[in-house]
Amino acid sequence: MASTEYRDTHAGGLRREDAGTVVRLAGWAERIRDQGGVVFVDLRDASGIVQVVFRPDVAPEATDAAHELKREYCVRVEGTVQERPEGTANPELATGRVEVEARTVEVLSTADTLPFHLDERTEVEEGRRLKYRYLDLRRPRMTANLLARSQAVGAMRRVMEERGFLEVETPTLIASTPEGARDFLVPSRLRPGQFYALPQSPQLFKQLLMIGGVERYYQIARCYRDEDFRADRQVEFTQLDFEGAFWGQDDVLATLEEISVAVTKAVRGIDLPRPFPRLTYAEALARYGTDKPDIRFGMEIVDLGGVFAATEFQAFATALAAGGAVRGINAGARQMARSALDGLVARARELGAGGLVWLVVEADGSLRSPTTKYLSEAEQTDLVAAFGASPGDVLLLVADRTDKVAAVLGQLRLELGQPSGHEELAYLFVTDFPVFERTEGGDLVPLHHPFTSPVSVEAMRTDPDNAISKAYDLVLNGSELGSGSVRIHDPVVQAAVFEILGISPEAAARRFGWFLEALRYGTPPHAGFAIGIDRMVAILQGERNIREVIPFPKTQTGADPLTGSPSRVEDYQLSDLGIDIRPEVRQAWAEEAGEETAT
Amino acid sequence: MASTEYRDTHAGGLRREDAGTVVRLAGWAERIRDQGGVVFVDLRDASGIVQVVFRPDVAPEATDAAHELKREYCVRVEGTVQERPEGTANPELATGRVEVEARTVEVLSTADTLPFHLDERTEVEEGRRLKYRYLDLRRPRMTANLLARSQAVGAMRRVMEERGFLEVETPTLIASTPEGARDFLVPSRLRPGQFYALPQSPQLFKQLLMIGGVERYYQIARCYRDEDFRADRQVEFTQLDFEGAFWGQDDVLATLEEISVAVTKAVRGIDLPRPFPRLTYAEALARYGTDKPDIRFGMEIVDLGGVFAATEFQAFATALAAGGAVRGINAGARQMARSALDGLVARARELGAGGLVWLVVEADGSLRSPTTKYLSEAEQTDLVAAFGASPGDVLLLVADRTDKVAAVLGQLRLELGQPSGHEELAYLFVTDFPVFERTEGGDLVPLHHPFTSPVSVEAMRTDPDNAISKAYDLVLNGSELGSGSVRIHDPVVQAAVFEILGISPEAAARRFGWFLEALRYGTPPHAGFAIGIDRMVAILQGERNIREVIPFPKTQTGADPLTGSPSRVEDYQLSDLGIDIRPEVRQAWAEEAGEETAT
Repeated sequence: MASTEYRDTHAGGLRREDAGTVVRLAGWAERIRDQGGVVFVDLRDASGIVQVVFRPDVAPEATDAAHELKREYCVRVEGTVQERPEGTANPELATGRVEVEARTVEVLSTADTLPFHLDERTEVEEGRRLKYRYLDLRRPRMTANLLARSQAVGAMRRVMEERGFLEVETPTLIASTPEGARDFLVPSRLRPGQFYALPQSPQLFKQLLMIGGVERYYQIARCYRDEDFRADRQVEFTQLDFEGAFWGQDDVLATLEEISVAVTKAVRGIDLPRPFPRLTYAEALARYGTDKPDIRFGMEIVDLGGVFAATEFQAFATALAAGGAVRGINAGARQMARSALDGLVARARELGAGGLVWLVVEADGSLRSPTTKYLSEAEQTDLVAAFGASPGDVLLLVADRTDKVAAVLGQLRLELGQPSGHEELAYLFVTDFPVFERTEGGDLVPLHHPFTSPVSVEAMRTDPDNAISKAYDLVLNGSELGSGSVRIHDPVVQAAVFEILGISPEAAARRFGWFLEALRYGTPPHAGFAIGIDRMVAILQGERNIREVIPFPKTQTGADPLTGSPSRVEDYQLSDLGIDIRPEVRQAWAEEAGEETAT
Repeated sequence: MASTEYRDTHAGGLRREDAGTVVRLAGWAERIRDQGGVVFVDLRDASGIVQVVFRPDVAPEATDAAHELKREYCVRVEGTVQERPEGTANPELATGRVEVEARTVEVLSTADTLPFHLDERTEVEEGRRLKYRYLDLRRPRMTANLLARSQAVGAMRRVMEERGFLEVETPTLIASTPEGARDFLVPSRLRPGQFYALPQSPQLFKQLLMIGGVERYYQIARCYRDEDFRADRQVEFTQLDFEGAFWGQDDVLATLEEISVAVTKAVRGIDLPRPFPRLTYAEALARYGTDKPDIRFGMEIVDLGGVFAATEFQAFATALAAGGAVRGINAGARQMARSALDGLVARARELGAGGLVWLVVEADGSLRSPTTKYLSEAEQTDLVAAFGASPGDVLLLVADRTDKVAAVLGQLRLELGQPSGHEELAYLFVTDFPVFERTEGGDLVPLHHPFTSPVSVEAMRTDPDNAISKAYDLVLNGSELGSGSVRIHDPVVQAAVFEILGISPEAAARRFGWFLEALRYGTPPHAGFAIGIDRMVAILQGERNIREVIPFPKTQTGADPLTGSPSRVEDYQLSDLGIDIRPEVRQAWAEEAGEETAT
């Protein structure tokens, strides 16, 4: 970084070999200490910190001025780099063996008393951090997160550029689809009463680019989802979106590996082994109870259907007879009091299971549990063998509908075994997702989206519930980083999917007619993916919440405490748009205002 | 580009040295010619075109299949690269010395008859091109424009990364400001009746990043402007946005030069000379009549106030006496009939001038013009001298208010002299813009934006109309590519600007209170810029309209003929948002529908 109008070098780069050099620095006064007339200032800029010393005998005027400095004043200093006197080096600073003896200091701007301390030790409530995000960003944690994000995105772009992908921007004021109740809408001024929608993803536009012959497309795309917030969701989010023509699944997964390896290297300095493990959706559910397994630890789910095929224990027998499952995990050797074990039963019930059977392996290999009395000798022996259990191990069994068993055991597995840190990074692919899933109401809906290619059109027609698609996810440490698929490139297959989904040809034409038409002009086979950048960077940085890696995030209710968005607007701003506030909202406002006046 | 599931190499890269190699290709059938049983297919992919030959004696089945191919079918071909027979090489193709003798062909997808030809020779109406943009993108012109844009943005990023800029994303669902009648609004579902706004630029957020200590920020930012379209505007557009802390104007201009040099090299292969010329706003207006001069050609405006200081020609004398100007341009030696010269007078009137005086320099150095009789001998001699005019030159003079003279002559200069091509590229900086301008109603408004630093706070207070700011533009071939400024970093100065603009402290607090507060915590001096990427790429590509370099643009009325946005939405989509369509709009729709039914 070269010199600028206000400085000729950076604080963080000064070393012993610079001793004797006159430097002009600019930055913030992080700490000011007055030691008997001599003033020490830790001067911070984006590169780091250096100690500046003001001595009354060397620079009386500057020292006087330094006495007036307060925390976070923005200053410019001119002085000479000196080696620190013997015994006063600060090993915690990269610049700790030098200091700058100031000749002049100029206050570029003053700072009010800060609403919170900027050091890492101070815990600050998040609402306050967001209100003063510009100060929060000065803290080392946020500085590191911003840097990591920039490096991650830079690494992604380099992979895409090296692989010959074209960066193409797709529109963000797009067509609202009739079913798009979760789209953000944007009223149009030129066409009052009409609306654009903000995209949930560039899906159809990137498919149009494939039809357009782009062949390799990528974009760092801002996307929007107007839904209730979960802890790790934002109304706007960013994804690395890419697509390739004449591609199959392996082409996508290979590209994903390259991207993940490059990003991990850039952010964490770690060389990941390749290839990444792959699990089918069915395997993932069977072994980990989830389609986004954390494979940093074992504790895999063991199917016990064979062990209990002829059991007389009613709970197990009933579940198996109903086509359900008996499965369990070996939670490993752990000291657990009876109350803690019973706590697990309660937790399993909370998660939706009818109950939970726990068994502890005794020193002699026998099992301790209120349930043992219902189990035969052979069942107990086979159980220990199925788990490969050792004395001290705690075994947890659930019998229920298969999907429920998987979900409960998958969650218990995480709660008992998932590492809290992020030192180890376990990427994997989950493949062969079902084409459809059922809503609670029993309706068939796409598990990914309706543009995902089925493995077999025939199977999709005859047995939609069990049809497999060419969809796949990238998972890191138990979080889904993104998903993708081979797309449908044949308009006949696309129409078949709409038909199975219960969308009439007329409705399909109305909603996606322009896209169905586009498919009719020599669409190449194509496949792609989208990686959630917020989540990927958060995991790599060990942050539990994506807000920590977003410079200016919204709260969970979609608000920005800094700027006050969203907010009410003046009527004249709406009238041109052909819209108005609904009477019941105005009524509520009036009541609110009345109450405020009353109190 | 490596091999994929569908192919192992690209069409455009095949050369004589590949002869004998078996290749699998995939792409589109661009031309199909049947020559006595032998079928020739020009196979196009993103890399280029190669001729594929199907011979009945070599591959009877494939040849039969090739007979069935139609234009733009998407196909896969396996065959052997062969040197073309003597005399049949095609020098227009990079692959013109080889062809691929096909063994198999597979149709990956068929194509309906295209709505227009894809070759460059066919002129297609723009509405039709946009409706079938995915086909339009297959045409060489659009392919080249997409590539150029990707290269331009890539070059920008590389400069920013090399200079240590952090890529930071700022939010696009932001606070609506009360005066923001031109903001796009986005109703919030979580807070019905409240609105986000889409950003016209990341201005305040990037200033917050400076306050947050980021020091060097950049972003390829999507921005939004809900205004009537001009030929070169879009509702959404993209800019390279950057900002530096501890920066002054020269730091920004040096960075801009580096970016422009890199982009021009990447897109055009041209090495630009540095430094770029600089003109002050006042100089630009005086010499070129505009703040975005095209300096690829001379024809500079000459001030004739001295020549006509004592003139008896009423039109000139009146203008000068009123504090206006008499200026002109030497349009150079050109054959113009009397009618053409009079046409220029009409054009000047159309542009707002009271009139125009034309004079033609005769072979003997005398002047021919209906006006000469009003001009003294000395005036005529001085006039020729002031222009350095030669026989045949056409001189055009306007006398009026200074700003009107500048505007009219500036426009005439362009119409008479501006090169139509884009071979030469003339970048320059225009600096020292005024802080304020007056609206037609006489109100003082910021010429750039209210966060622009004045050169002197004192001058701004005492003589706001003539105060100069630290704002600057980058201009290329007569188009403004972008603008920037040194920002105000002192909350007192910021408050002074609001005061001069007639914004009360209360109103300022309501509208920008959070920002004024942010300035109070040690804001570093900072400066930045935003380059309009659409326009820059359009000029470099020789396109007159930015729509040509936007993959999926909107029309001038903000519509997308491909997807039908914007559109009406269902009432249930609005009810959650706390808004409704205004009765008069519903009324208009009902009338429209009635008429449609009636006809």
